Formats: sequence, C-alpha cells, structure tokens
Amino acid sequence: MTVVAAGATLDAFVAVRAATEGLAAPLSAEDQTVSSMPDVSPTKWHRAHTTWFFEQFLLLVASPGYEPVDERYLYLFNSYYEGAGPRHPRAERGLLTRPGCAEVADYRARVDEAVAALLARRQGDPAVDATVELGLHHEQQHQELLLMDIKHVLGTNPFRPAYAAARPARGGARPLGWLPVDGGVVEVGAPPDGPFTFDNETPVHRAWVEPFEVADRLVSAGDWLEFMADGGYEQPGLWLSDGWAAVRAEGRRAPLYWDAAPDGSGWIVHTLEGHRPVDPAEPVVHVSYHEAEAFAHWAGARLPTEVEWEVAARRWAPDPPVRPIGMHPAAGADGGWWGQVWQWTASAYLPYPGFRPAPGLVGEYNGKFMCGQHVLRGSACVTPPGHARLTYRNFFPPAARWAFSGLRLAR
Amino acid sequence: MTVVAAGATLDAFVAVRAATEGLAAPLSAEDQTVSSMPDVSPTKWHRAHTTWFFEQFLLLVASPGYEPVDERYLYLFNSYYEGAGPRHPRAERGLLTRPGCAEVADYRARVDEAVAALLARRQGDPAVDATVELGLHHEQQHQELLLMDIKHVLGTNPFRPAYAAARPARGGARPLGWLPVDGGVVEVGAPPDGPFTFDNETPVHRAWVEPFEVADRLVSAGDWLEFMADGGYEQPGLWLSDGWAAVRAEGRRAPLYWDAAPDGSGWIVHTLEGHRPVDPAEPVVHVSYHEAEAFAHWAGARLPTEVEWEVAARRWAPDPPVRPIGMHPAAGADGGWWGQVWQWTASAYLPYPGFRPAPGLVGEYNGKFMCGQHVLRGSACVTPPGHARLTYRNFFPPAARWAFSGLRLAR
Amino acid sequence: MTVVAAGATLDAFVAVRAATEGLAAPLSAEDQTVSSMPDVSPTKWHRAHTTWFFEQFLLLVASPGYEPVDERYLYLFNSYYEGAGPRHPRAERGLLTRPGCAEVADYRARVDEAVAALLARRQGDPAVDATVELGLHHEQQHQELLLMDIKHVLGTNPFRPAYAAARPARGGARPLGWLPVDGGVVEVGAPPDGPFTFDNETPVHRAWVEPFEVADRLVSAGDWLEFMADGGYEQPGLWLSDGWAAVRAEGRRAPLYWDAAPDGSGWIVHTLEGHRPVDPAEPVVHVSYHEAEAFAHWAGARLPTEVEWEVAARRWAPDPPVRPIGMHPAAGADGGWWGQVWQWTASAYLPYPGFRPAPGLVGEYNGKFMCGQHVLRGSACVTPPGHARLTYRNFFPPAARWAFSGLRLAR
Amino acid sequence: MTVVAAGATLDAFVAVRAATEGLAAPLSAEDQTVSSMPDVSPTKWHRAHTTWFFEQFLLLVASPGYEPVDERYLYLFNSYYEGAGPRHPRAERGLLTRPGCAEVADYRARVDEAVAALLARRQGDPAVDATVELGLHHEQQHQELLLMDIKHVLGTNPFRPAYAAARPARGGARPLGWLPVDGGVVEVGAPPDGPFTFDNETPVHRAWVEPFEVADRLVSAGDWLEFMADGGYEQPGLWLSDGWAAVRAEGRRAPLYWDAAPDGSGWIVHTLEGHRPVDPAEPVVHVSYHEAEAFAHWAGARLPTEVEWEVAARRWAPDPPVRPIGMHPAAGADGGWWGQVWQWTASAYLPYPGFRPAPGLVGEYNGKFMCGQHVLRGSACVTPPGHARLTYRNFFPPAARWAFSGLRLAR
Repeated sequence: MTVVAAGATLDAFVAVRAATEGLAAPLSAEDQTVSSMPDVSPTKWHRAHTTWFFEQFLLLVASPGYEPVDERYLYLFNSYYEGAGPRHPRAERGLLTRPGCAEVADYRARVDEAVAALLARRQGDPAVDATVELGLHHEQQHQELLLMDIKHVLGTNPFRPAYAAARPARGGARPLGWLPVDGGVVEVGAPPDGPFTFDNETPVHRAWVEPFEVADRLVSAGDWLEFMADGGYEQPGLWLSDGWAAVRAEGRRAPLYWDAAPDGSGWIVHTLEGHRPVDPAEPVVHVSYHEAEAFAHWAGARLPTEVEWEVAARRWAPDPPVRPIGMHPAAGADGGWWGQVWQWTASAYLPYPGFRPAPGLVGEYNGKFMCGQHVLRGSACVTPPGHARLTYRNFFPPAARWAFSGLRLAR
Repeated sequence: MTVVAAGATLDAFVAVRAATEGLAAPLSAEDQTVSSMPDVSPTKWHRAHTTWFFEQFLLLVASPGYEPVDERYLYLFNSYYEGAGPRHPRAERGLLTRPGCAEVADYRARVDEAVAALLARRQGDPAVDATVELGLHHEQQHQELLLMDIKHVLGTNPFRPAYAAARPARGGARPLGWLPVDGGVVEVGAPPDGPFTFDNETPVHRAWVEPFEVADRLVSAGDWLEFMADGGYEQPGLWLSDGWAAVRAEGRRAPLYWDAAPDGSGWIVHTLEGHRPVDPAEPVVHVSYHEAEAFAHWAGARLPTEVEWEVAARRWAPDPPVRPIGMHPAAGADGGWWGQVWQWTASAYLPYPGFRPAPGLVGEYNGKFMCGQHVLRGSACVTPPGHARLTYRNFFPPAARWAFSGLRLAR
Repeated sequence: MTVVAAGATLDAFVAVRAATEGLAAPLSAEDQTVSSMPDVSPTKWHRAHTTWFFEQFLLLVASPGYEPVDERYLYLFNSYYEGAGPRHPRAERGLLTRPGCAEVADYRARVDEAVAALLARRQGDPAVDATVELGLHHEQQHQELLLMDIKHVLGTNPFRPAYAAARPARGGARPLGWLPVDGGVVEVGAPPDGPFTFDNETPVHRAWVEPFEVADRLVSAGDWLEFMADGGYEQPGLWLSDGWAAVRAEGRRAPLYWDAAPDGSGWIVHTLEGHRPVDPAEPVVHVSYHEAEAFAHWAGARLPTEVEWEVAARRWAPDPPVRPIGMHPAAGADGGWWGQVWQWTASAYLPYPGFRPAPGLVGEYNGKFMCGQHVLRGSACVTPPGHARLTYRNFFPPAARWAFSGLRLAR
Repeated sequence: MTVVAAGATLDAFVAVRAATEGLAAPLSAEDQTVSSMPDVSPTKWHRAHTTWFFEQFLLLVASPGYEPVDERYLYLFNSYYEGAGPRHPRAERGLLTRPGCAEVADYRARVDEAVAALLARRQGDPAVDATVELGLHHEQQHQELLLMDIKHVLGTNPFRPAYAAARPARGGARPLGWLPVDGGVVEVGAPPDGPFTFDNETPVHRAWVEPFEVADRLVSAGDWLEFMADGGYEQPGLWLSDGWAAVRAEGRRAPLYWDAAPDGSGWIVHTLEGHRPVDPAEPVVHVSYHEAEAFAHWAGARLPTEVEWEVAARRWAPDPPVRPIGMHPAAGADGGWWGQVWQWTASAYLPYPGFRPAPGLVGEYNGKFMCGQHVLRGSACVTPPGHARLTYRNFFPPAARWAFSGLRLAR
C-alpha cells in the first residue's frame, strides 16, 4: 500500500477510518455490543456498517474480482438500503454477539487494505474519489451517531460511567442579545460545483424572507431552569399537542439525561465526561423539537426557519471552525453557531424545490426520509472536525432527544 | 324563539344544526354508538360534542346564570381543550352507551333553545355572533368527520352496508393536461377583515414561487390502477421510508376501501352509497400522503406545495361552488378543484409566518396540531356546502387514509 | 306450533329463550352494542350467538332442507368452534352495528319457530332432545355472561348507571366457623347416566383427601376491608409472583368495581343495582384467583381444592336451591354455598382422569380450555335458576375479575 | 484458605463455582452480555447473580462486619427477591455493559474467598452449611439456565455459531413399548430428613392413582416428524385453545430451533454443538406443553401426571446417573428417564398438600411461582451432574420452549 501514490483521497480515508477506531478505543467489548433503545446501534455495528458502505458501494462496484470478506456481512451490515438487498432487522442489531469486536477490527483492516489498493490503482479516478468522499462523510456522520448512541447506553447503566475524562468548564453566562437580518428574496442551498455536500442540500433556490432578528447566543441550561421553575412542563397551553402528550405519557420534566439530585439541591446531568451538576452557563442540549418549540413559546419568541438560520449564519458566523471533537457543549463567547449543539429549526424536513436524489443506490441516503422530521442546523460538540457547513441539513423526528440538540431563538 | 328577530346568525345556526341531525338520521342507535378505530368517533359523540362547543364557549361565557344541561357532559364531550378542564379519554368514546341517542337529541334541543334565546337577547352583538360563527364552522367540520367516521364503521362490517342510495355516475375519463402558473413573489393567506376563516389561514404573507405547471384534473382511479399494474406497491424505490414501512407492515396494495373482487375480475370499492366496482373515471380517494407522494414519483411529477396550490386555484378555479353534500367523488369536467377530494400538498402543516393563535380557549383549535401533519387543499364531496374556500388548510397525518383524500399533480 | 305436543323439551326451550330476552329487555340498543374490553361481548351478540348454536348444531344437522336465516350469521356468530368453519374475530364483536337489535330479535324468533317445529315433528327423539338440552345449558351460561358483561360495560361509563332496581339488604355479619370433613379415598365427578352435566364433569373417579376443615361462610366484604387495612395490597410476601405483578402494573388496591368514596369515607361499589356503599356483611365478589390466594395466605388458611369443595358441599349443602336470578350477592345465614358468588378453588382446570371430550363439534365446548385456568365451584347470584349442581366446574384465568368470583377458606 | 479444614462443604463449593466458570469459558465478552428475549439472561448476569446469592443470603447474614464488594451489586443482581429490597428491572439485564466480564470474575473471586474463610471459621455449623448447600443447588440451576440462554442467544445469530464441539451420535431408533404401573394409594414427595431437596418437593403426601402404563422411551424426533407429516400443526382439533392460538400467531410448524433445510431436503436443528440435520433417533426437545399435549392427543395417548411419573420412575428407573453435562439429547437404550430431556407432565405446578415455604427470604424461591405453569420431571442433558432426583419438580409456562423440554407418553 503506497500512501504517497494514492494521494489526498487516501490520506483522508486513513484519517477518517482511524478516527472511528479512536472513538471506539475507550469502550469494552461489552460496551460495544449493546443497543439500549431502538434508535441506538451498537458501537461495533457502527464500525462494521461504515466498512460495509465501502465494500458494497465501492469495492463490489469498482474493484473487479473483489471477494467480500464474508458474504453474510453484506446482509448483516446493510442499514436501510432496499436496493442493496435484504438486510438484518434493525431491531436485532443489539442481539448480535458475533462477529465480535476482534472480527470487526479484522473486517475493517481487510477492507481498508482493499480500498487503499484500489486507490493506488485508480489514483485520480473521479468516480472512485467521489464514492470514497461520500463514504467518508457517511462515516463521519456515524462517528457522531456512535457517540450519541454510546452516551445512551452508558446512560441506562445505574453506574452512569464516563466515556472520557472531564475537561475544565469554559466561560460564564451572558445576557441574550438580538442580531438583525434583512429580508427579501434570498438564495439558499448548495451549488452543484462547490465542495462536497449531500444531495439534500441542493439545488440552490430562491425563497422569500421577511426581516427578522436572531438571538446572539444559544438557549442555555440556565434559561431552561427558569422555564422549568416557571412551570414550563406543567402548562399545556405552551405545547404542541404531540409534545404535551409525550410530557404526560413519559413524565418528562427536564431535558434527557437530567436527574434531580438525590439531596434536592438541583439537577445532575449525565455526560460523556461523567455525571455532574448542570452548569447554567452551558447551552441546553438533548431537548426535543417539541420542547424547543414550547420553550420558544414561553419566551415570547419562536424558532427560526432553516432559510432564516442559513441567511443569519451566513451574515453573522459564516465559517464553521475546524475544531477537535468535544464531548459536551460548554459556555463560550462565540454565540454557539457551531460546535456546541444542533439547533432545531421551525422547518419540516422536506425536499428543496427542484431536488433530485443522487443517482444509484446512494439515492436512498437522504430523500426517502423527507417526511415527519424537523431540520436542525449548525453542528454539535461531537460533530467531527471538518464536517460542519452552512448548508448542512441535519434532521430528526420531533420527539427525539438523544441527538445533541438545542436551540437558538428568533423573532 | 323568534327566528326573525335573531336574524341571519340564527338562520345559519338553525340550518347548520339541522344539517347535522339530517346526516345522523339514516343511522340506527347501534350505528351511532361504535368507534371502529382510534381516529373514529361515534356519530352520537359528534352530535353531542358540537353541542358542547356552544355550551362551553358560548352559553357558559355569555349567558349569565346558564345551567349546563348535565354537568357531566362538560367532561364527556370536551374533545381536546386542555383549557376547558379534564375530559373523557378519546380512546373510550366508543365505550359510552349512555347518554344514548335520545338523550343526545334532547341535549341538542335544549342547547339550541338556549342559544336561540341568547341570540334573540343579544341580536347583533359581535362577540356572540363571532362565537356562533366559529361554532358553526366547527360543526360543519364535524359533519364531514361524521361521514368519514361512519364510512369506516360501516366498512368494518362484513355486510358492507350502504349509508345512502346510489346516484348515477357522471361523465367519463379524460386525458390529463397541464396548466401554467407564473412565478415570483406572491401573497397567500387570509386577510383579517374578510369573511370567516380559521386562525391557521392567517396572516396574509409573501412567498416566492418559481413558475410551474399544475394538472388540469385530479388523479383518477384509472391512473391508480395503472400505478398498481406497474408494480407501484412493490417497488421500494418509489416510496418514502415511512410509506414503504406501512406498505410492508399492513400489506397495503390499493387505496383504503378497495377490495379485490372475489372472482378476480378487478376491484370493488366500499362507498357510502354501497359496494360497487371501481370506476376508472372517478377521482382516486382514500390514499395517504405516502401513497400520493409515491404515485407522483412514479408519474415523473410531484405534489404542489400549498402556496402553489393556492396560487394555481386562484388563477384557474377561484370560486368554490356552493353544492349539495355528496357521498362519493365522481368523474366530471370541472377539473375537480372543489367538491370531489381533498388534495394532498407537499407542505407540512406549519404556522404561517407571523401566525398567532386566536385568543382564549379556542386558541387550541388549530395551532397546537402544527407538527407531524401535511396540508390538504380544496374540498371533498362530503364537505358541507359553503364550507370551502381558497385559503382553507385541511391537515392529516401522512399515513392517514380515512379522510376523503386524493391528489393533483404538479411539475 | 303445539307446545303441548312437543312436551317438556319445548317447555324448557321456550322458558330459557324467553329468559334471555328478559335479561336484555332493560337495555337500550346502544347498551347492547358495545364491548368494553376483550373479554366482554355485546348483549346483542350473546342473543345472536345462543341462537346460532341451535341453528348450527341442531337445525342444520337434524332438519333436512333447513335454510339458514342469513348465511353470513353462521360466520358472524360462531364463537370459537374451529370445526364449524371460519368466524368473525372475537376482538371485533364490539364493532358490529349490523345486524342491529331488531334484526337479532327477528333471528331469534325465526330460529325459535324452526326449533319448535322440529321438536313437534321429532317429539321424544333422544338425539334432538340431547342437543336442545345442551343448547339450553349453553344459553344459561350466556345469560350469566350477559350480566357479567353488561355490568362491565355500565361500569366503564362515568355515570355508573344501574341495570336493575336495588333490593333491600338481607341479614347481617356473622363470625366465621369451621366445618370438619373426613378424609380417605373419595369419589367425585358426574356419572354417565344421571341428569345433564357437561363433559368436563366426567367421569366419576377416585381421589385421596386428607381430613380437613372448611369455613361455614364465604369471605365477606368486611373481611376484605380488614385485609386491605392490614396492608394486604402492599405486602409482596403474601402474593404469588404473577399476582403481585398485576397489583403493581394495574395499581390494584381493592376488588374490581370498588372505588374510594370521593369524601374519603370508605368504599363505593358499582353493582347491577347501582352505585352504593360497600356492605361489610355481604360476600366479597370480583376478586381474582391471585387476590383470593393472597387473602387466604394472609388469613393463615388456604383455598380448598375442587375435590375438597365437592366433598364438603356434598356433606354440608348438597342441594343447590332453585332460586331467582339476583344481581348482587347479599349477606345471609345459609353459608353461601350456592347462589351468591363462585368460589375459587386451589385446583387448576385440568381433565379428570379418563376424561374424553363429547363426540362431534361440541367436543370443543370444554376440553380445549383445560390449560392456564383455575376452577371455581358453587354458583353465583346471577347464575340462572336450575343451572347449579354439585359437580359443576366453572373456570376462569387466575387474573380475571369480571366474573362473580369470591372465596371460601379451608385449612 | 484451608480446603481440608473446611471439609466437604468447601469442596462442593469450590467444585460448583468452578463449573460455572467452566461453562462461561468458551464465550466471548460479547456473547456474555446480550439477552435475546425477555426470558433470557446474559451469561455474565448468571455469573454475578449466583455470586450475589451467597453475598446476600450467607455473607451479609452470617459474617459480621462483611463489606459488600460493591453496594450497587446488591441492587443489580437481585433477581426477584422482594424481601431483599429493590432490584434492577429484569427487562434491562441485557442493557448492562458494566460491570463487564472481568469485573464479574473479580466479584466471584472475592466472594469465593470470603465464603471459604467463613467456612473455615464456622466448619460444621449446620446453618452455614445449609445455606451454602442451597446456594450450590441454586447455582446448578443457573448452570442449566446459562446453557439454555446462551443457546437462544447464539440461535438468534444468523451465523448459528456452535458453543461446543460436536460429539458422535449414540445409538439408533427403537420401537416404543409400554411399562405397566400398579395403582392405589401411593406416597410421593420428599421426606424432611433426607438429602437436600427444594421446599416445593415437600411434604411427603398420599395420592390415589389408577393402574396405568408408561412409554419405555421418550418421544423421538422421528415420532415428531410423523406428527408433522400427518398435519399435526394444521389440525386445530388436536390442540388446546391457547396452543392453537400460538401456532397461528407465531406460525409454528416445528419445535424451536428446527429450520427447514434451504434445499427442501428436511430439517436442520440448531444445537449447542452446531447446526446439523435432525436425527430421527434422538429425543425431540424444545417443545412446549401445548405441543406435547397435542402430540399425545394425536398419538392416542396422554401425558402422565407428576404423581404417575414419580411412581413409574421409582419402579423403572429410580437412580439418576451422575453423568457429565452434555449439550444435546442423544438416542440411547436407557429409556431416557434421566439426562436427556425434561418431560412435561399433565400436572399444573401447584403446592403439595401441606406445603409450607421455607422460612426467611429464601421462601420466595419456589412457592410464589405456583400458578400458571406446568411441571416437568426427570432431567436434561444440560442438567449438572448430581442435580437430578426422583422428587425434583421443574416448571415452566405452558408456551415456553427454550428449556430442554420433551415428553414421555402414558395411557
């Protein structure tokens, strides 16, 4: 394997693949095996599935004579691609003890080797490079999912173990201000000839916005404590009907991962860095769309639409910093547009005008989920470095809370 | 009770209230008691709930000293108004045998009398007139729901009984053509000072649309048979993920109420006018958003957004005819904008920019459902006369099929 | 139709059939249509199903050329006889609005006429008489089920309506005494050549019992209040594992139909005679096997086995009185062996040694339910007159409470 | 730790504890973590729970000053002892990744050491010895459960991995013969002063049995194939009502772990020794009570009661051999009374006349499960050596199939 010969694509491939293994490294074989709820996939499944993506969409397509590492993995590690044949039921991912972590590591190594060889043979081939690029962005998404998921697994454990060492808190609380944004016909979305984007960010299109204002910082845990103290979780009039039903059915009275301190002194939060008191200055995280919407209602404001968010971020914070992966949002002075929490928008996740799914099997990547979800913008502390951008459309169902989801107000 | 003295509001009140009783008249006490699925309410519940609306929001507010007909009805017949106190669980509506039909008729008569007396005393009082007007529009919505619901109740009966006599078929099939609509910044929504609208139709606001074309007729049952014959229900690539999951989980292979003829000769459809062969010329009805979206995908077209629908209807069919209530959509030459089937749009049901719920308890009427649903436009054969308008926003969850829902294509 | 000619069988037929209609008479069409839980069948279904039994097992077998009243009823009103062909799903009985009460009455009248004609033609035919006799015992069972079921339907109604007028209370509380019974090899069960019995009561067989004592009265509501006051529903150590799980899952803290009085003054019980304070002197009723077993444990006693019960009743109360149907158990001086509440025994419902199901379709009547249930002995206030006997084996699942089930202690 | 000083109890303790670890040894950390259905506990949970038993019931009671290894384990590894305080929900056992296998091994070692020290200090103390003896029998039960459970875990894996190497088949098919057993008043159950038994085997009591015959071998897989070929799974008349419902609901058409060979050539069975063709000569295993009962019905025979089984075994095969643990039943010439499969009896699992639960916390061991289950007698290939005896009462719900359950006919 000649790294130099294969060039930048191989460098990126090696780096992203190694980053995944780095995220799994602190976890025991037991940790990597379990699924704690239907949305959560085991760590070793993420490691294998991202590998399958390269095997299925790159090696089996572009590498004549390639023999799959194990035919059965093509079935086991397909997530939801109907076009790629039958697949193991999602609900049973947490029942699979074999292949184990060691066999998954071996699977990764053998596919990595085959991809590296292919890149060496086909250096500069744009079709190959495009598939690898897509696979790496796909793998970065799973790096974030891996952290979301293992946070939930560890959060169901009565011991509430930490995944990583705690870092010192940064900064303090600050009052909320408002930033003005002009209205009119605007253009949003990703152009066809720019850097990599997912198909759901295209095409560039026009929209009308009225002038508006957007908050200069995220909603904080301290803001949320005020909402709670003011009976936010007890007033049905603040809530969407579905949101109130969830509050009642599940007894929700705080964000996910918040527990009342046994001594009644306040709230404790489970983080990837361990169990600790809620810091009022940090951005609130792990709230559903329903909760975000109720909070905005209570605050006399609203959530921005995704068009508004994109226009506002372009005006006030256009460049996502390339920053190291973190494990929990932290108070800071930068307004929190990037690298803290995903920000719920008022927009349902729907196709842009003129949207066409990418051709081929990967056309199933985004388009088929355009129903029943809401868009989040920005990026989170656990989003891999280099993965954030202005036109990125993240999406989750409105009741979901296990993503690193928070909010920014508009009015 | 002096009808003349109370004027137009009383006339409307008497007419709408009588129309409800007319719809219930062909149904036995047994028919009026049952709920055949969680979405379906019993006929006698609709009759009582629409009465409760006047008692709760008009008589108890504007008629000092008014004594409720039965205190317990305030609990039993509240649908979902959190602000109006605790209420009987929706899931148990079909378990209530008391009050029976006769007692519900008595409840209606006593509330009608009290409202008429109030209208006589307060003739021309705008607050009273506004509440009555809202209550009548509310009751008209329930007239349509009553028919949707009893269709389902009768449809679960192995006898498939008819609700009404069959009418002769109208017209035949015709080829589909396309109507052009200009783009640009458009204004949509309902003005504050016009005729009655619901709060969710406001405010008037601007939006951007690109030029587009809209089909000059509804998608027909014949079109749908082609879709089915071409494997529409067997190709996952045509479907949204949730839609495909429903197809698999429920074994869907045709619209709701279609049954394969026992002799293999085609399809039989359960209608309020009885069981009969599918007429290819009639508009398809009782399809979900998922099905509508898959069909549009298959046809190489798409669904219009609700802004597009409103702009196109304003251009091509601005005046909803005042027509008698029907029981099943029928082939016709008028393009089917009104009075046939509700038309799914590509738009999620969300607040318009600047939307504010109506003040008071009736603010729960629309706003709190703005999540997880899709907008339908136009009106259906079972929509009461005078209830359709250009800015009307109907909405149902994307998997729902028991409404009279069909579709019109755009591109 | 010549009643005299057809003789005793016809007399019995006319009387039992009329008794069913008498039980339904106080109920509205709405009341007769609803099923309030999966175990509960609508009143009009009971009326139709007992009619189907004669049509299916008598007229279609023994009456050449007989035409069913409606072919579809053979499907709709089969309860669970696999041998009689496909049938309407039990869970959907409460969705059937057609046939309505009037059509069911007509069905009954036409089948009654056909049976009477058959009895006239075949007077004294033992096969015909035996089937009619079985059908009448079957219908008597459904008379009791009808009352159990409508009690539940009315009990889910917030109005808690009464089915019948209240009768004056009888008698007062009395202390519990113990009656001795000898042990040894005993014979129990029903002989082949005696009066009518169900197949599950046969054959006569021998068993061994040790000497024991049995309580001289039923456990009373007052006894139960002591159990509750002593924390009976809070001590897991008193309960079978399944029983404790039900206590926890459903929040059980009293017998079915008992509600805490809103003013905290005690307990109110829903009866077929209306809503009224619990009378400590009346037998406790509507307790599950689990509750009965926990009570016996708490009382330092146990439940008798069904062999013990039969031997004890043969010794101490061998003759079930022919008494009018009642609506609620009442305090009395007769020990309550008969006509008050069914008495849970410690015995699982299993085949007697040498048991053979009755030949033909009616072999499905009893045998196939011999798993997962417990035997109750005696009879209840709602058991039809003449239906009780020493060898009768009633059975329900151990968690069931909607039967008129109570208990008698042994030690 | 002085093994010699502590004597026989310590020897047994060391041997049984080591046997558990030996059973876990072939399993990876991933294998030991998962629960594949609600009945199945993870291997590492079995290892920890059996350790908790000694900590909770021995060390915390009899070893003053003993400090639990981890307070939290007292909560995590309590199975169902209400008297021992709150406990981790059973349904979440498979979500626990911490403590991992290594920490569980450490837990075992530390408790083993403390028990050995206690035994040295209190050598010959009958209370201590009795608790250890109970704990070892408890652990042997969990050894069998561990194998049942891991078989299910591996059986849900599409790879169907083997747990152990395959052994050569033994013996061939042989025709079934009948052994006579005398009737009369018999004594069954375990005496108070004999070797160890569980409380549910006591007291010795009398019962009446009629003369009967019992099969001289187990029902074989070949017999079962005949039942299947004769439509056993298609004839409702053979089945108990609950059994037929399970056949329909789950599409059952063969014993658990049988799969139709992809090439249509017959049946493949998943065993702990791997995936292999069904051997007609081996005893059938993993059938429910419902299936066993239907088979007996089809064969014109019946299942023995547990009294009959005990009397017959005492006559024909009184001495359970002390044999090594196996992994799958095998054809043999010894009639299969012991060490092949547990044999369903016709008896519900109920208390013996005069039964009293053991005093103290361990009184929850058996008695509270005496409802809704059926008794199995004999022992299975996976039953630990020395754990089988004539009076042993095993029990499972009638629908359960994951135990090593088969059957022997009577008539």
